Amino acid sequence: MFFASDNSGPVHPKIMARMAKGNEGYAPSYGNDSTMDEVRRALRSTFEAPQAAVYLVATGTAANVLALACYCQPWQTIFCAKTAHIEEDECNGPEFYTGGAKLSLIDTDDKMTPEGLQAAIERLSKGDVHASQAGPVSITQATERGSVHSLAELHALTAVAKKHDVPVHLDGARFANAMVALGCSAAEMTWKAGVDVVSFGGTKNGCMGVEAVVFFDPSKAWEFELRRKRGAHLFSKHRYLSAQMAGYLEDGLWIEMATKANANAGYLAEGLRSASVTFLHEPQANMIFASFPRRVHHKLQEAGARYNLWHGTLEGDPNEAVGARLVCDWSIGKEQIDAFLDHF
Amino acid sequence: MFFASDNSGPVHPKIMARMAKGNEGYAPSYGNDSTMDEVRRALRSTFEAPQAAVYLVATGTAANVLALACYCQPWQTIFCAKTAHIEEDECNGPEFYTGGAKLSLIDTDDKMTPEGLQAAIERLSKGDVHASQAGPVSITQATERGSVHSLAELHALTAVAKKHDVPVHLDGARFANAMVALGCSAAEMTWKAGVDVVSFGGTKNGCMGVEAVVFFDPSKAWEFELRRKRGAHLFSKHRYLSAQMAGYLEDGLWIEMATKANANAGYLAEGLRSASVTFLHEPQANMIFASFPRRVHHKLQEAGARYNLWHGTLEGDPNEAVGARLVCDWSIGKEQIDAFLDHF
Amino acid sequence: MFFASDNSGPVHPKIMARMAKGNEGYAPSYGNDSTMDEVRRALRSTFEAPQAAVYLVATGTAANVLALACYCQPWQTIFCAKTAHIEEDECNGPEFYTGGAKLSLIDTDDKMTPEGLQAAIERLSKGDVHASQAGPVSITQATERGSVHSLAELHALTAVAKKHDVPVHLDGARFANAMVALGCSAAEMTWKAGVDVVSFGGTKNGCMGVEAVVFFDPSKAWEFELRRKRGAHLFSKHRYLSAQMAGYLEDGLWIEMATKANANAGYLAEGLRSASVTFLHEPQANMIFASFPRRVHHKLQEAGARYNLWHGTLEGDPNEAVGARLVCDWSIGKEQIDAFLDHF
Amino acid sequence: MFFASDNSGPVHPKIMARMAKGNEGYAPSYGNDSTMDEVRRALRSTFEAPQAAVYLVATGTAANVLALACYCQPWQTIFCAKTAHIEEDECNGPEFYTGGAKLSLIDTDDKMTPEGLQAAIERLSKGDVHASQAGPVSITQATERGSVHSLAELHALTAVAKKHDVPVHLDGARFANAMVALGCSAAEMTWKAGVDVVSFGGTKNGCMGVEAVVFFDPSKAWEFELRRKRGAHLFSKHRYLSAQMAGYLEDGLWIEMATKANANAGYLAEGLRSASVTFLHEPQANMIFASFPRRVHHKLQEAGARYNLWHGTLEGDPNEAVGARLVCDWSIGKEQIDAFLDHF
Repeated sequence: MFFASDNSGPVHPKIMARMAKGNEGYAPSYGNDSTMDEVRRALRSTFEAPQAAVYLVATGTAANVLALACYCQPWQTIFCAKTAHIEEDECNGPEFYTGGAKLSLIDTDDKMTPEGLQAAIERLSKGDVHASQAGPVSITQATERGSVHSLAELHALTAVAKKHDVPVHLDGARFANAMVALGCSAAEMTWKAGVDVVSFGGTKNGCMGVEAVVFFDPSKAWEFELRRKRGAHLFSKHRYLSAQMAGYLEDGLWIEMATKANANAGYLAEGLRSASVTFLHEPQANMIFASFPRRVHHKLQEAGARYNLWHGTLEGDPNEAVGARLVCDWSIGKEQIDAFLDHF
Repeated sequence: MFFASDNSGPVHPKIMARMAKGNEGYAPSYGNDSTMDEVRRALRSTFEAPQAAVYLVATGTAANVLALACYCQPWQTIFCAKTAHIEEDECNGPEFYTGGAKLSLIDTDDKMTPEGLQAAIERLSKGDVHASQAGPVSITQATERGSVHSLAELHALTAVAKKHDVPVHLDGARFANAMVALGCSAAEMTWKAGVDVVSFGGTKNGCMGVEAVVFFDPSKAWEFELRRKRGAHLFSKHRYLSAQMAGYLEDGLWIEMATKANANAGYLAEGLRSASVTFLHEPQANMIFASFPRRVHHKLQEAGARYNLWHGTLEGDPNEAVGARLVCDWSIGKEQIDAFLDHF
Repeated sequence: MFFASDNSGPVHPKIMARMAKGNEGYAPSYGNDSTMDEVRRALRSTFEAPQAAVYLVATGTAANVLALACYCQPWQTIFCAKTAHIEEDECNGPEFYTGGAKLSLIDTDDKMTPEGLQAAIERLSKGDVHASQAGPVSITQATERGSVHSLAELHALTAVAKKHDVPVHLDGARFANAMVALGCSAAEMTWKAGVDVVSFGGTKNGCMGVEAVVFFDPSKAWEFELRRKRGAHLFSKHRYLSAQMAGYLEDGLWIEMATKANANAGYLAEGLRSASVTFLHEPQANMIFASFPRRVHHKLQEAGARYNLWHGTLEGDPNEAVGARLVCDWSIGKEQIDAFLDHF
Repeated sequence: MFFASDNSGPVHPKIMARMAKGNEGYAPSYGNDSTMDEVRRALRSTFEAPQAAVYLVATGTAANVLALACYCQPWQTIFCAKTAHIEEDECNGPEFYTGGAKLSLIDTDDKMTPEGLQAAIERLSKGDVHASQAGPVSITQATERGSVHSLAELHALTAVAKKHDVPVHLDGARFANAMVALGCSAAEMTWKAGVDVVSFGGTKNGCMGVEAVVFFDPSKAWEFELRRKRGAHLFSKHRYLSAQMAGYLEDGLWIEMATKANANAGYLAEGLRSASVTFLHEPQANMIFASFPRRVHHKLQEAGARYNLWHGTLEGDPNEAVGARLVCDWSIGKEQIDAFLDHF
């Protein structure tokens, strides 16, 4: 009953096998391995973007901060939801990598609205040297609250960005879960929807530690390479990053895993719904934010269930509802979910 | 005949196996995995430093820049050899992570001398607000030119640092190779010799991508954790870093591999010496800087040998001597070395 | 009719005279002038803080960002009102000088509330490496909306800070106006109210360009000196900064000017109140935020009045109310105010 | 007998008068004062550069670091003489303002040579992501050792820069002294010699605290304005910077003062030469580096002479020669110099 995070489960055996295969013999270092050539081709094909510049790093935060730094001057501000990973979970990493840019938070408990974004951008009087200047918009897809922007919602947000001539970054730590939920293509969810650069996550979806940064505008390529090296994120034994991403993309494994993860979450949500549990956010991908009585939490904890409480504690009135964040990855089995639901 | 770098060969099978074992089931993320507890114990024991604060990152540059940043204010300067990795190979990473500190280069083609270090520190008038302030000394062991500071040399350098009340960092990307060459203990080469923090390399010596940062003064622990996260170097699936380091330390595998690598380099050096090749630096660990006629380079290249030229090109007088950097890792076989030597 | 800003009027003649006097002969540079000794004594006496470390810079932004940088690590966040100068008017200066810290905005149209501050600090789970860490609180006194925290309000805010063990900065660009409004002493409005460091403004209150930074904890002194030099804010011909501040403090000139400025604003406010003008904020110091019909704006503009519109434009329904920011300095005469009021 | 520095003497009375005149009435802030329009015209005319972007700041370090930051990415390195002010006297200010760029020092005791510069640039293999990338060249004119690059020397240095496609900054803290020494025009010493941006000093040459930054390529204008504001160097009461620069340029006052300062130094040098004093550098502008017996130093110190010792102390053999740095500004009178020389 491990629902703590999608970074707690094992790496998919096929990816482990691909890394073992990649371990044979000698290989040029620092991204000059031949597997990276494969990965580049595969990602360009996946995104239908033959000119895209494609890079690998090992953490989601690295992907986000390096991508954003290429699009943000130190005197600018990044527009994002108050709940974005770059605001809440990166310990000022974006501020560090941009050299002191600001984050302008759109006040929302989940998705940014185009109106909120527009107001935030317009609050900064263009041309006023005293204020932060408008920088990139960063959209999280799927969001940190487990919901998914529809393609129409993405288009509406990027339209505001384009109107104000600022670039768009997509934080796709859970890219695959969102894409599977929408049933669209990688291109439709990115450049066709107005996205300039995407952090394409692998780690949370069955890899060991690999994220691609895909620039649809390849003019940022060299700057990214310099920023990656200077940030200490260029791997000497890069072939193991390449092998992970190669295995991830091969035969649609990434889609298979995300489909599995989403289905797990769907099955869990259905069970919770039957038990009259309240949802704090409508679950759309592989995360569930639910609220149920403290006594049920007590039973679950005793039974060894692992998940995060959400704005609450175990102490207090047993009948009071307390929130929980439940995350499913590809590896969770139905029996675990059933065992969990048995306590409701 | 692959002598290009010690980051080009395969990961040791025992480490691959340890990672596969570490892949079972669920594990807490971000360094809270139980394997990290093992690693912490093992490193403290290895360094005979029960209070040491111990962390893992994935690249040598990350280990260096994060360790140095904990000991260097933005208005200070780091003293190091002109040939140091932090000066030549990290694309201003130390300047980035320290928030704009300077590097003061000791003018040497290899090891710093205590006199050179002393002069550099004294050049900065203490208390003069206009100048850079004296910050940490960073010593590379083994050096980037393949030589090894004796314990006496280390003590002499750190004595200068202590005299001026500045801390000492050891860049140990090739720590094991140096230690094996000296036949000393890890403690003797670090805190017993006046070192405050060490980048303890695994990647170049048979791991996939893992370096430990060991602080003998644990008061820097929390600052390091914040800097690591903010630098995007905290792994969510940290257990795979832990597994690498656990496998590396288990049963002295790290010493076994460094012994093998040094022996390979020794065997190669002996062969070259017999062929009357000139050494640009006296080889002491697993790297050889040798100079031999361009026509021999031609033969080697045709035969598929892989190594870096050192301040020279393949074009020109065939009898003119041109330098080569030859690096051996644990995986190189005698037959490869013999095949290489056959061309002399 | 010049109400655009308190940085638009002339320097007080006594300060000009003090600078002329300071121009005689030779003087040591970089703050070693003897006038600075006088200033140090005078400020320590003014603040009843014999141990205070006292420095001069030339801009209010420099005072704020240098003071804050001494109390804020790059992985921390500064708590301030959404309307603070450091958030709205310094083009990411605080982020630059702190090396990438964040600003956490208390959502208010004017003063922070203790509850808002408390909630903002508590939102950051202490000890969570993923989040920004709690850094200093910065209070603006008088606020950017022309109101003044009572001593009780200051105490309530600093009590929250002390409870969470974070330092307190006071942005006193309009320190004198606030102090005069409260009728208290400089000590009561700072260290006696729990303030650790203050930006003590001179520029807006009749000086040419000088602000003092006063650290009640002198242990920050040397760090400040290094940050000031590195930030390019150490004046070689420092004696002219000293002369300004000396003249400012002499015979209570600073209090005299602030009293005059506040009285001017009071007189203007009274006149506007008689004309049934609405105030957007209750005027307490030398700034007035008032709202009146567009047709009155039209008349004023034609007559050459200078002030800033506040969230509005001159185009539109002549009877619609539009905001104005009106600032008075010491130099404004009654006749100017009367001339202005004549249009209502 | 005040030869300590050209920042120790008084501001020229005409500049004081210009500031007093500028103090009348109200003026728009932040550089929008009408005097700045005059200054802009005057500087463009002085430099024969009608398109130049022209800005004022208050310190020489601010001029240097802001100008350089506009031409240097954080992963680049600035090429300069080992003796440059930006290296020796700005407490890592350039590293701070560039976001962590490096300084690559040309090893010289005074002027850079084209050969030294060329070697330094070529040492950085273009396109190697591990190394610092080549950034701007910064030339100090007059140098920190009191000598002056001839126009031919400037052309030779900028030719190397152009060949490697890197921009050129001129640190002209003593611009006027150098220009007068060469007898050339401001244009000849800057853009006609291949300079892209110049720090045009006023402070050391009779102003209170003002330096112009002149970009011959106006495309950097907006970036500079943002960097200046973010660096806290935009003056609200900007009219007093404008007034200084206006007075400085009016009727060639700046040339008159530099001519006077150089003549003073020439007269002093002549006197010293007659007394068989050794020069450490051939004096060409307003600074003299001379070496004479310690007993003469003793006499001078007793007589109240003020100057800096140069690599030496007052203790030791009275007949041993010890260096002195002697700086003349416009205000030094012949009688002071004669009084000084009397001790030889």
